[in-house]
Amino acid sequence: MRYRRVPDETVRRMPLYLRGVRILSEKGQGSICSKSLADCLGISAWQIRKDFSYFGDFGKPGVGYDVAMLESRINKILNLGCGHNVVLVGAGNLGSAILSFNGFRQYGFNIIAAFDRDAKKIGKKKGPVVIEDVSRIARMEKKGVDLGIIAVPVSAAQEIADALTAIGVKGILNFAPVRISVPKKVKIVSIDIAVELARLPYYMVSSQSQGVVE
Amino acid sequence: MRYRRVPDETVRRMPLYLRGVRILSEKGQGSICSKSLADCLGISAWQIRKDFSYFGDFGKPGVGYDVAMLESRINKILNLGCGHNVVLVGAGNLGSAILSFNGFRQYGFNIIAAFDRDAKKIGKKKGPVVIEDVSRIARMEKKGVDLGIIAVPVSAAQEIADALTAIGVKGILNFAPVRISVPKKVKIVSIDIAVELARLPYYMVSSQSQGVVE
Repeated sequence: MRYRRVPDETVRRMPLYLRGVRILSEKGQGSICSKSLADCLGISAWQIRKDFSYFGDFGKPGVGYDVAMLESRINKILNLGCGHNVVLVGAGNLGSAILSFNGFRQYGFNIIAAFDRDAKKIGKKKGPVVIEDVSRIARMEKKGVDLGIIAVPVSAAQEIADALTAIGVKGILNFAPVRISVPKKVKIVSIDIAVELARLPYYMVSSQSQGVVE
Repeated sequence: MRYRRVPDETVRRMPLYLRGVRILSEKGQGSICSKSLADCLGISAWQIRKDFSYFGDFGKPGVGYDVAMLESRINKILNLGCGHNVVLVGAGNLGSAILSFNGFRQYGFNIIAAFDRDAKKIGKKKGPVVIEDVSRIARMEKKGVDLGIIAVPVSAAQEIADALTAIGVKGILNFAPVRISVPKKVKIVSIDIAVELARLPYYMVSSQSQGVVE
């Protein structure tokens, strides 16, 4: 048996499709076609069908996808069905914003602890948790933590990634603008907000959207 | 004359290369090869050379790139050289975190105003600016604002995007988990933090990294 490897870019888009399906579902649609999902998300219908094709048969072409089926299938593919415990490290401005953010629950994420090394922050309640000292990350080892969020300065990011790996997290969302090294079984997704902003000016100069003369 | 169109994914990586070049430059390296940049960023050397190739000749193969030249070239390609004025709309938790963030300046970004509709926030100083009422966005029209950051709830995002487009921004960094429509000349980069987290559990199940049987 041979499997086709799913590109990271496809995996990246799958949660967006889930977001779109839910928006259309809330509008009362029971069945949707790739075109309506495409319009909702600003991704081409062709791309959506191609991404879905990695995971087998999703529905009857021309008839559209059943919304409940689609939501359930994508949830299952993304392994979101059973919920995941998450810990956050770094309760500064960004970390606090993340703790106050209520958009994680719809994907089954449950932030069960948050850590910082600043004595002034420790013991304070932020969103659903009370901030603890970073030295206490190790106590989470048997708590079934699947994912970690790193919102600490660059200088501390690797050490925190090591601590998270030690308690058995299998994925890290990293906001520190630095490469962190983890064992291969741990997946890292990095968001560097400045880097994201830094690609916008490229498009301001129309001739810049082209490269060298061929 | 024919130009090669540069893929968005290449443009997405260029600011990362800039980040890497600066890290290596701070370490005192005067010349770097794609391999050392690759190690620094966790991107393959092949990918880096391919991305650079869209923009013409970058250096002598085998000898490596001159660091100062590389930084200057990428800065120019990304149109970051002269700096850009940015406004932020939505001074909630995330917006406040962004205003306090000092990582934008290294790319030449200058947040010159921030807006919110919450009377309790208006008039308060956050980071470099004093929060103003959203109705005052229009006064920025002649202020040379290139970019806008949207950190408002989903329900307000489109209206704010329209207001930003009206004052002439050419790019928007959107944190609201919704598709916003803008004229074609305005580029949007969206960051949906929950969606980024939601792709991590996929990789927890090893068999999930493969798709259907071929």
